[in-house]
Parts: sequence; structure tokens; C-alpha cells
Amino acid sequence: MYKAPVEEIAFTLNHVAGLADAVEIGRFGDLSSDLVNAILDEAGRFATNEIAPLGEIGDKQGARLIDGEVKTPDGWPELYRHWREGGWNGLTAPEAFGGQHLPHMLNVAALEMWNSASMAFALAPTLTMGAIEALVAHGSDALKGKYLEKMVSGEWTGTMNLTEPHAGSDLGVLKTRAERRGDGTYRIFGQKIFITWGEHDAADNIVHLVLARLPDAPAGTRGISLFLVPKFLVDDDGSLGARNDVFCHSIEHKLGIHGAPTCTMIYGDGRFHPENGEEKGAIGWLIGEENKGLACMFTMMNNARLAVGMQGVAIAEAATQKAVAYAHERTQGRAPGWTGEGKRGDMSPIIEHPDIAGTLITMKALTQGARAICYACAYAIDMSHHTEGDEARHWSERAALLTPVAKSFATDIGVEVASLGIQVHGGMGFIEETGAARYLRDARIAPIYEGTNGIQAIDLVTRKLPLSSGEQVRGFIGELKEIAESVAASNDTAFGESGDRLRAAVFALEAATNWLLEVQADGRSADALAGATPYQRLFGLTLTGCYLAKGALVDIGDGGTEKRVALCRFMAENLLAETSALKDRVISGAASLEAARAILA
Amino acid sequence: MYKAPVEEIAFTLNHVAGLADAVEIGRFGDLSSDLVNAILDEAGRFATNEIAPLGEIGDKQGARLIDGEVKTPDGWPELYRHWREGGWNGLTAPEAFGGQHLPHMLNVAALEMWNSASMAFALAPTLTMGAIEALVAHGSDALKGKYLEKMVSGEWTGTMNLTEPHAGSDLGVLKTRAERRGDGTYRIFGQKIFITWGEHDAADNIVHLVLARLPDAPAGTRGISLFLVPKFLVDDDGSLGARNDVFCHSIEHKLGIHGAPTCTMIYGDGRFHPENGEEKGAIGWLIGEENKGLACMFTMMNNARLAVGMQGVAIAEAATQKAVAYAHERTQGRAPGWTGEGKRGDMSPIIEHPDIAGTLITMKALTQGARAICYACAYAIDMSHHTEGDEARHWSERAALLTPVAKSFATDIGVEVASLGIQVHGGMGFIEETGAARYLRDARIAPIYEGTNGIQAIDLVTRKLPLSSGEQVRGFIGELKEIAESVAASNDTAFGESGDRLRAAVFALEAATNWLLEVQADGRSADALAGATPYQRLFGLTLTGCYLAKGALVDIGDGGTEKRVALCRFMAENLLAETSALKDRVISGAASLEAARAILA
Repeated sequence: MYKAPVEEIAFTLNHVAGLADAVEIGRFGDLSSDLVNAILDEAGRFATNEIAPLGEIGDKQGARLIDGEVKTPDGWPELYRHWREGGWNGLTAPEAFGGQHLPHMLNVAALEMWNSASMAFALAPTLTMGAIEALVAHGSDALKGKYLEKMVSGEWTGTMNLTEPHAGSDLGVLKTRAERRGDGTYRIFGQKIFITWGEHDAADNIVHLVLARLPDAPAGTRGISLFLVPKFLVDDDGSLGARNDVFCHSIEHKLGIHGAPTCTMIYGDGRFHPENGEEKGAIGWLIGEENKGLACMFTMMNNARLAVGMQGVAIAEAATQKAVAYAHERTQGRAPGWTGEGKRGDMSPIIEHPDIAGTLITMKALTQGARAICYACAYAIDMSHHTEGDEARHWSERAALLTPVAKSFATDIGVEVASLGIQVHGGMGFIEETGAARYLRDARIAPIYEGTNGIQAIDLVTRKLPLSSGEQVRGFIGELKEIAESVAASNDTAFGESGDRLRAAVFALEAATNWLLEVQADGRSADALAGATPYQRLFGLTLTGCYLAKGALVDIGDGGTEKRVALCRFMAENLLAETSALKDRVISGAASLEAARAILA
Repeated sequence: MYKAPVEEIAFTLNHVAGLADAVEIGRFGDLSSDLVNAILDEAGRFATNEIAPLGEIGDKQGARLIDGEVKTPDGWPELYRHWREGGWNGLTAPEAFGGQHLPHMLNVAALEMWNSASMAFALAPTLTMGAIEALVAHGSDALKGKYLEKMVSGEWTGTMNLTEPHAGSDLGVLKTRAERRGDGTYRIFGQKIFITWGEHDAADNIVHLVLARLPDAPAGTRGISLFLVPKFLVDDDGSLGARNDVFCHSIEHKLGIHGAPTCTMIYGDGRFHPENGEEKGAIGWLIGEENKGLACMFTMMNNARLAVGMQGVAIAEAATQKAVAYAHERTQGRAPGWTGEGKRGDMSPIIEHPDIAGTLITMKALTQGARAICYACAYAIDMSHHTEGDEARHWSERAALLTPVAKSFATDIGVEVASLGIQVHGGMGFIEETGAARYLRDARIAPIYEGTNGIQAIDLVTRKLPLSSGEQVRGFIGELKEIAESVAASNDTAFGESGDRLRAAVFALEAATNWLLEVQADGRSADALAGATPYQRLFGLTLTGCYLAKGALVDIGDGGTEKRVALCRFMAENLLAETSALKDRVISGAASLEAARAILA
């Protein structure tokens, strides 16, 4: 069973991502390290003791659509109520609406724990937090006053309605219609698919944020507006009124996250049309300006993508814990050098076998690296909110740069680590009761939604590398070089070849980065795009190596154990060599890709 | 829907693995290339038209245990009957028992097609073929006479009963008991788990091959005997007699291969004990000699492991076909250079996007490479049976060398390709109805069973590399060098950098091989084992590059299209650079692994 790794999370937040220093200098007001620790401890306790035990039933039973109502798994409505009563939904929300206005870093760390315990459950608040963020940034005072307090408390949940059958990655072609009503409201008509927690029985009201197109809107992405469409209309005194004309038509039968209802939502087809002669359609209120809906969405995109990255970290952590526990318990064969030591007869625990040990250490290295990348991204987001002028722009760019790497690398390794976890379990890993298979099934959606990892790579290469004419990424690579040099200069033999390997990885990242900036400056976008996915992986692996090294340097500086150094060394000497291959692929892969396209004809 | 790629299969069998030349010189008697083509065509037709349409219901409905009887999915008993009536079960079996005594290569090619259409279905005959092989090699004439004809025809199926809860990879500790009865029969008592197709409704009788231990047997693997235990006893006239005391206690709820019942079998607990005063126990007959049961199993191990490798190829092929079809159909966004050409409005088919195209070509390269490796292994098995003396020993060693690579590489890429296939489908890939997720769920068992891929790596490094004092593997690497040199010498610019990249990969394989042989000669087995899995991957990738090159060289020699050359180049310039990283990892990974073990304590 999952146990929240609070100590590891705190170390990474504080010493790798930079929270401790920021708290020390008062960057986050009166936030103290004691409060940080108390919050992490309590989140860990809740995730471990309350969510995790209900994760399996959520998977087994799944969400069910019964007579148009969605029933979540047994115990989940109560679990959700306990969770929101703990105040977890409003960690980062404005105090004016009942939130605690804490740094995103803390929320991201908490999200990791909720998702490790049950990704399907954690999706509900993840969506609500996104909706809150959009409303805070772009909603009118009237809308904020009516909705935010209940959403921040978690009494009402939120959803994001973007996808339509023909409009996934490409939102420019969506067809959901919005009509002006003349009284400041709108009527919404259309169908949205893949709406996570679109309908359920765990909250009194559901606040849908819906992208739709006005009749006179320009074509494409510049003609999309964002609307708030509540399940139940809200009266002026805040009480719930009539049912709005939106309902869940069906829920999907999915590979994983079974406990989370994935809904097809129908707006304005008349099922809940009032009998009082009103016009048809689901009643909606505009968020932000007409035709600027996509911009409203983008303001929350960084956080949402980072939240999905946390799902990758979370699953990797949980899968690793389970595999390590099994490998200590299960005995089979006799590892080289195994003497038994009177422990359990002739057979070794399988963790003694080099292949199993190497697999588990790989899982640990990738998990801790992905965690550090995501937390570093959260740090940049927080810093962008707590600084001003050029400094704020710098941190905002840093967050923008790190977001696609955090989302893609963490979700890719989430799938890899979950798959390795099954492998460590042998035949038992394939049996659903064991629980290892659930991690792979749940993990597999994360590289897809909130922008596929292919889309993230395009974003990274075409929009993020050119920030400040490439100076943002170059400056960041400069920081990574310093880490590599510090390791090389440390004279600690326990680092082995880490210094050289880190240097080589950072140089590979730099060479690939420069090449991508150059070819794009030359207008060779197809060449750049061909290398985008291997580049993204190169970025993530190099960051993993550097962040493990950063943690190790802090640890030995503090007289800690050699465990972080050993993990850094394992990463550097086993997994970083791939960076050279990835760099080659970025730079020389495009020609062979073009030549091979004929194969697909 | 899957369509058997008969042309590609025939090309790989004939020109990459070597069947055409062998047939030409009469190596397989009067087998003609026309007959080969006719068999492949007919197998392709059956897989495409009859099995594939029933694959989905098999997954959805699964096998069900009802009142102690296992019911297979709707339509499957009839499907199985059609299949065996086609004579497919006995392709390689001896003619004396109704088989066709054809080369294994043909059976392996057919297995690929059955597995692509439905891996869960194909498992039934795969197990029967293994049982036939063990019986042919080690059974007494009486046992052969009584059982083989019905097993070769497929009227009776076979199973392999090895695993017990505490005895998976390590069979030395199994506890199932066998007692001598005095009349030449034995009584079997015990529990076996993970017995594929252990009980079902598609055949009249089920012939279990069971590993068990005699009371006076030595401890460990030298005290294991192999027994034949039929579900129904067989009278001397061949008719079915009394029910034997073996039954299916439960079936597993698994991640995939839902249509294949995975049974816990109970032997000799008295449920079917006759009332006539006979001794208790399931009645069994010895196969081979007492205490030599594991050796009997090993004679069929190569074929069984290769058959599992084919499952990896099969799933990769099916997943690739599905993803390519979807990527042609689905439109989204606008790829660089996309003009629309009046086809489907502004959006490109997603196959036009470089990232998707690169993913699909990667899937094709890995699939075709794994196929070639498996077929080459089958070729070696056939050659070992159709040659004599030193030549037979050479081919037998070649088969032994290639088997772990074929099993592990093909099943690993099966999982990878199935996962990429989901990714290409975007959100639809996560929805079960789409069918892409099933491939990942089914594929995930193949790296585990019939010896985990970690066990394969140990086998490759510790038992296969030292064959003929390393000369077998060195000779093979010499052949690979020739392929690389031929590409380098071809002067065909369409190969791009393929020649250099192939050379570098083969040199990396050679360096890693020499290092592994040396450290083992020095008794440093832990160091060798630490590098076993990356070495196995290095071997598989290098072979993939070389076999794609071999096919390309044949193709251009025959005036074919440049497609094979382009695929070879893509592989060489994108995926082979990893071989250098793997070589480094083999040679220098052990020290950091040892240092990092403390992390797992």
C-alpha cells in the first residue's frame, strides 16, 4: 500500500527546487518552514490513510451511469467531503474567496500525493482548481462573487469542456454554438466529449467551463469564447435554482482511471428545458471577452499541464514503492554472492538479483528526476507571481520553458516505471488483484490528455526555445553546466564518472538546442519538428541527471548519507549516455524521416 | 481490423531468414516455394477473416468459470474447430501422427498471424504444440500411440504445468508430489498456477504435462519429473474413460488475454476420486526418465520461447496497422508544408505531422526487425534438424543464441509499439472500444512468461555467449559485419549514413560481447549479470538494423522499391545510436549499481 514519501518530497521542494531559500528570505510572506512541513505531513497522512485505501475499489467498481445520474465508487462521496473539509481544495486560491493563497509548490506536492493514492479521485479537484484559476483571472466580479467561494471550498466542482469528436488537439475547428440572449447571458448548444468528472454525485453543483463559438465569430482559434455553465442555476442569494439544460449522455469505458467519470456532455438539446416559455439552450455566462476564450484557457494551461505531469510522478512513485516492497518479500533463485545468512533458506529475495536491483534503481532515479523537474516548474510559477518586472518575466518564461518538459517527461516515465513495476512482479504483475497493472492502466492517459506529449514537444521547440531570442533556454543551460561543474569539482569519489557524464549530457542538450534555434531561424520548421520529441526526452533526461546531482551536492554538504550521490551516479553512468544518441537524432533525423514517409503511403 | 501482411512475412522468411535458398537446394525435401506461398496465403486468410473478427468479443467477454467448467467466449469453440480442421495444429508434427512435418519457419509465420488476430485464442494451440513436442521427444511409444494423433489433430489440447505459488522462475523448489503406484502409473498431488488454457470447452480432452517430485527425489532441479495427466483417462481403444482427479479451481482476473483461461489446477484432492476403492490422486504417466523432467522441458524451451517472441511481433504488427490506418483517417491541425490539395479542407491527416510519421515508422522498423530476428531463429532451429554433425551443432547453437534475443526483444518491442499505438490514437486510444488499448494489455504478459526477459538476459549472457568458447557468437557477429560492410560498399546514396551507423552498432555489440566473455572467464559473474539486460537490448537493436539492411540489399538487388532502404536508413540514423549508450552501460554499469544498492535497503 502506498505511503506518502513526505521526507523525499520535502527535500526536493526545499533543496532541489528552491523553496527553503525562498521561504528563508520571506519571498512567500510569513510562510514558515514549519508550516510547510505541517502541511506536507498532513497531506501525506490524508493520502496514505484515507485516499489510498479507496483507490482499488474505485478502479474495480468504476463510475457508473444509472438513469442519467453518475454514481461514483462506494465511499467516494464521503471521501471527497472529508478531503474538501480539510481545506485542501483552496491551498493556492485567493484568500478573498476562502483560499489559503499558499505557493503552487505546496499544492503541486499535495497533488502528487493525492494522485499516488488514487489518480482517478485526484482528477476531480484537479479540474476544479483549473476552473477556479480561469475564473479568478478572467471572470467578472459578479461571476466570481456567485461561484468562487463554493468552488474554492470544493462544495461545487468544476470541469473544462474543450474537446469535441473532430476537435482534439486542434480546437480551432470546434462547433459548439453560443447565442447572445440580450440580457447578458448566452445560450449554449453542442456536444463535448472526454469531460472528466463532468457529472457525479460527490458535490451539490458542477460548474462547467465551456468553449463555444458565437454566430459572428471569426473562423479558427480566434473565434472561440469561454462560458460558465452551471449544472444548477444559482439564485442571487447563492442557493441552487433550476436545473440547467446540460446533461451527461454517456460515460466512457476506459483502459484506466475507472473511478473518474469521463463524460459526453450535451448542451441545450432541451432535456432540461424549462416549461415556462424561455428560449432553448443551456444558460451560460461569458468569461473574459468574446472570442478571447482560448487566451483565457491558456492562462491556466501551465498549471493544468504541470498537474498532469504530477500524475506521472505520482504513479511512478506508487509503482516503485509497490515493486520495491514485492522484491524484498518475494524469494526466487539465488543471487551471485547470496549466502542466505540464515534468513530465508536457500533462495534470495529477488531484490538481490542484479537485474531486479537495476530495474528498481532505474525506477527510483526516473521518479525522483521527474519530481524535481515538476517542482522546479512550480517554483518558477510561484516566483513569477512573487517578483516584478524583468524578474517576473524571467520566471514566467522559465515556467513556460519547463512546463512541456515537466508534462511530457513525467508522464512518459510514469508509463515506463509502471510497466517496469509489472515486470518486477513477474506473473503476479499481470493479475489485476495485485494492483501493479492498475498503475500502468491509469498512467497511460497522462501522455495523451492536456495536450499530447507530441504537442508538448512542438510547443517546447517552436514557442518555448525562442523565448527572449533563445536567451531563456541558454541561461538555463548555463545553470545546468554549473551543476555539472560542481560535481566534477567535488572530488568525491562516490560520484564516479558523474561529472563527465553530466557535462556530456548538458553539452548534448546545448548542441541540440542551438541547432533547433538555428534551423527555425532559417525557416526549416519541418526539420525542427522532426526532432522535437527526441529533443524533449533529451531535455528531461539531462534535467533528471542535473537535479539528482543538485540534491546529492546538498546532501553531502549537509553531512547526509551517500544515497543521493549513489543514485546520481547510477543515473549518470547508466541512463545519461542516451543523451548523446538523442542529440544525434535531433540533428540528423529529419532527412531519413522524410525519405521513409513513402513507407506509410 | 487486422489484415495479415502475407507479402511482408513471405519476404522476411524467404530473403532475410533464408528460407528461399534452403528450399531452392532442397534442404526441406520436396517443399516448394509454391507450397510455402499457398500455406502463408491460406493462414493469412484464416487469421484475417475468421480469427480477427472474434478477437474483440474474446477480450470483452473473457473466459468464465461457471460451476467448475470454463466457458470460452462466444463463438470460440466453433472457431477452434474450424481452425484445427484446417490442419493448422500439425504443421510441424511428425507425419506418423498425422502431422505435416513442415519447417518450423512456416509454423512460426502462421503463429504470428494467429496471434495478431487474437493472442488469447492463439495461446491454446501454442501450448498444445509445446506438449506435442515434449511427448514426441521423450514419451514412450505407448503414450505416443495413445495421445499424439488426437493432439496433433488438435482434437485434444495440451498444457504445461510448471508454476506453483512459490516456484516461478525457480522451478527447483516446486512441491507437487508424484507417487509410484507399482503398475507403471503415478499419482499426482498438488496445485499449479497460471496454467494457460488449463480448462475449457473447446476440446474433448486436455492433456496436462505436469512437473512433480517423487518421494525419494534429490532436492532442487535434479529431482523433478515430468508426467502426462489427462483430464479424461483414455481407454485402450482410444475412447474417453473416467474423469481424472484434476480440476480448475479458479481462473485469474488479468490485465489482458482475457479470452484465454489462466487456471489454478488442483491435482489429486479427491474431487474426482472414483468410488471403487482405488488409491487417491490424479493418475499420471511418466514422460522420459524419473528426475529428468526439467531436461524434457528444456528440449521444447527454444520453441516455446520463440513462440512467445512471435506474440510480441504479432501484437506490434496489429498495433502498427491500426495506428497507421487511424493516422490516415484522423485529421487535426495543419502539418508543415500541407497544402490540403483539395482533399479534406484545412486540416491534415495526422500522419502528415512529423512526430506522428516518425512514431509510425519507428513502430514499423521495430516490428519488422523483431520479425526478422524471430524468423532467423526459426531458420536456425530448422537447419539444426536438417543438417548433421558439426553443421547441426552449429545451427543448434545458433538457435540457442538467438532464442533469448528473439523472446525478449520481440516482447519488449511488442509492449513499446502497442503503447505508441495508443499514443497515435490520442484520447481515442484510451477508450476500450477503439481496440488500441487491448494490444497493450495483451502484450504486457509476453515479457514475463516463458522465462521473464530478465531470465532471458541471464541465459543469453551466462549460457549462450560461452557456447563453443565464444566462437558461436563471434562467428555471428562476423556475419553482421559483412552486412554492414555490404551497405557501406553499396554506394547507394539512399542508404544515407546507414553503413557507418551499422558498423558502429556491430562494433558496440562486439565490444560488449568480448567484455562479457572476459569478465565471466574471470569469475566476475555479478558484473556480467548487471549488464545482461542492456546487452540483450543492444543485441536486438543491432540485429534489427542488420536485418533491415539485409532485406534492403536484397530488395534493391531485385530492382525493388526504395522503401526497404528508407526504413533501414531511418532505423540506422534514428534508433541505432542507442547501441553506443547500451555498450557503455554493459561495460561500466556494474560499479554504480553496487554503490546504489543501499538505496533499496
